[in-house]
Amino acid sequence: MTPASTKPKIVIIGAGFGGLEAARALRKTDADITVIDRHNHHTFQPLLYQVATAVISPADIAWPVRSILRKQENAGVMLGAIKSIDTKARVVRADTIELPYDYLVIATGVTHSYFGHDDWQNAAPGLKTLTDATKIRSRVLLSFERAELAQNEADRKRLLTFVIVGGGPTGVEMAGAIAEIARQTLRFDFRNIDPRAARILLIEAGPRILPSFPEDLSAYADKSLRRMGVEVMTSTMVTDVRRDGVSLGERKIESEAVVWAAGVKASDAALWLGAEADRAGRIKVNDDLSVPGHPEIFAVGDTAALATTIPGIAPAAKQMGKYAGRLITARIAGKASPARFVYKHAGDLATIGRKSAVVKLNKLKLTGFIGWLFWSVAHIYFLIGIRNRLMVAMTWLWSYVTYQRGARLITRDDRPG
Amino acid sequence: MTPASTKPKIVIIGAGFGGLEAARALRKTDADITVIDRHNHHTFQPLLYQVATAVISPADIAWPVRSILRKQENAGVMLGAIKSIDTKARVVRADTIELPYDYLVIATGVTHSYFGHDDWQNAAPGLKTLTDATKIRSRVLLSFERAELAQNEADRKRLLTFVIVGGGPTGVEMAGAIAEIARQTLRFDFRNIDPRAARILLIEAGPRILPSFPEDLSAYADKSLRRMGVEVMTSTMVTDVRRDGVSLGERKIESEAVVWAAGVKASDAALWLGAEADRAGRIKVNDDLSVPGHPEIFAVGDTAALATTIPGIAPAAKQMGKYAGRLITARIAGKASPARFVYKHAGDLATIGRKSAVVKLNKLKLTGFIGWLFWSVAHIYFLIGIRNRLMVAMTWLWSYVTYQRGARLITRDDRPG
Repeated sequence: MTPASTKPKIVIIGAGFGGLEAARALRKTDADITVIDRHNHHTFQPLLYQVATAVISPADIAWPVRSILRKQENAGVMLGAIKSIDTKARVVRADTIELPYDYLVIATGVTHSYFGHDDWQNAAPGLKTLTDATKIRSRVLLSFERAELAQNEADRKRLLTFVIVGGGPTGVEMAGAIAEIARQTLRFDFRNIDPRAARILLIEAGPRILPSFPEDLSAYADKSLRRMGVEVMTSTMVTDVRRDGVSLGERKIESEAVVWAAGVKASDAALWLGAEADRAGRIKVNDDLSVPGHPEIFAVGDTAALATTIPGIAPAAKQMGKYAGRLITARIAGKASPARFVYKHAGDLATIGRKSAVVKLNKLKLTGFIGWLFWSVAHIYFLIGIRNRLMVAMTWLWSYVTYQRGARLITRDDRPG
Repeated sequence: MTPASTKPKIVIIGAGFGGLEAARALRKTDADITVIDRHNHHTFQPLLYQVATAVISPADIAWPVRSILRKQENAGVMLGAIKSIDTKARVVRADTIELPYDYLVIATGVTHSYFGHDDWQNAAPGLKTLTDATKIRSRVLLSFERAELAQNEADRKRLLTFVIVGGGPTGVEMAGAIAEIARQTLRFDFRNIDPRAARILLIEAGPRILPSFPEDLSAYADKSLRRMGVEVMTSTMVTDVRRDGVSLGERKIESEAVVWAAGVKASDAALWLGAEADRAGRIKVNDDLSVPGHPEIFAVGDTAALATTIPGIAPAAKQMGKYAGRLITARIAGKASPARFVYKHAGDLATIGRKSAVVKLNKLKLTGFIGWLFWSVAHIYFLIGIRNRLMVAMTWLWSYVTYQRGARLITRDDRPG
């Protein structure tokens, strides 16, 4: 960015699916674009559960934001966390720098929500960042290691119990993957315990898992998980989470490996702006994604709440990012703005195990191996960069053939107490 | 391990090159073997510098100890850190368990030595574990990110200065790799800084780098590094290390990315046994690797000091592990023990950059691209497991063709202050 530049300044906060798509849509615009993110990398969140379950490495689903935008000459990248936004002076304040803007796109995504029980966080990590994923990976693998050393049956039983809270796609994927680790990957690796004896519980507050899917696909996933030995508990509320287990009302389940896949809340973007937010903390935006009273500020992806509910998935964030980028392009060029944002739902996907998935695309429904193939190809396709595609494809093939997992690393000392 | 087993109990502490080779040599012995390690994985240390310089992922050079020993039915694996050894009762005490032994093999390797300046550790991390490697990776990448945001020339200069202390193979490899990151990988990625302006200093106390190599190969490496823009400073003592730089006597060099490759010291094994140690903390062993006064205890690899100096490299640890395993096998079978341990030096290898290495094998000397090819094939060959070999080979090919690095992740918040 030339200091004396008179070009319009566009700041994009967040290098997730929404932010990057906005930057891409602005690639031909005569402007100075800055993408700022807390991390130096874009994370391909749909495959985070595979890092958490030791299939692939963090670097396989992460890509430096600088590399992605290297060839886009009107865009620069900065590493930093946002402290505040001065909407009057039109300045974003990060930890070490200030960024003036003419247009601002906020694409800061979500974090976990513990429904007011923030103290549950340490006991039940969620799955939104690579750090979360390696933490869960360590905790799951460490449970088996500690069970092998356990001196009594009660300890062994507790250490071989895995609880996943939340029956959406992430919960279903985690439950299926942990079942496979216990029943297949680790099957011959221990001498004092039989990993196949592990209990895996998937707890969902609503009446069925995968509530966003058609009922027959939910039922299919439920049946598949049960066949893999997962105890699926629907209409069950978690009332307490501690480091040694969860409470379901009166009932207590002892476990030291609890994974939170139950709820999310938006980032602090609404607070930065002093904007009105919905219950999940998302900014209530106009139908062109602009923030009321601020035609120069846009919220996209999980940061935005529209009149109609839009699912918190990658394609939705991308569509919104693209729309905001195009709208700013039109505005700068003095052309008419595009019509209001309309979300097009492409479909829903969730894997259940190493050769099964449920897929819903318009009228098409796929299950089992065909669903899994579709899911695999779709996810490989959307990974950024030929290297990552190749590596993940090869790793999956290898895992599929050998039942092994190539990233069984315990990298943090995560013992309780 | 069957509780009532009357088989001899063999405990091997450490799942590095020495410990695993000892376990393998005991595979046909009628005994109960336990391998205990602080980590759940074996680390292929010769390639740690490639994790530290963002080429490959931790999981590419790490393998679960359980997987490695899965098929060896007389061996079990335990995760744990040693607290003490009771040589009278013949019991190893780890954090949560006690392991009785009839034979004990100690293969606990080395950690960094700061020559009495333990306070330098945080400012200048060494490179012995995967955690060390990801820490250095984050620190190096973060320096460039922070330089991009720097508000003045002094900060920028300090953040673009990288110091490697120690001119052995690890120091040479780190210096070459950081030079490539600055000159090639990141070349087009920044807008406010030119990564090629980075200063990379390799500081060696002795008169030449690679002191264990023949003089002409040292000179070759020196010249190659200089051509890559590395400032090689020999006969130079580091007198202080702080988070903001190093002192070389009167001279101060400002840097926030200092890597320690200068010295190692043995683990606490000599203290556990109350055995006599050399200056580096290695146990002075008999010529059959047994600990004086304890014919049932053996020290191998970097844990052992023999009358003749043996280099701290993987082949040496493997030879000692194999010897100890065979000796115990013979002892249990009531056969004559093998003759004293004799080390066979196969050679020395060090890479300098993406297409250059120095290799010394008996009378054979290789340099440049041929040396690099030899080095690559040798390292791929010694990696455990077909998957890791394939992944690392492909990653190298990809990096070689594209000049890119696939694991450019900053995973820890490692800002000073």
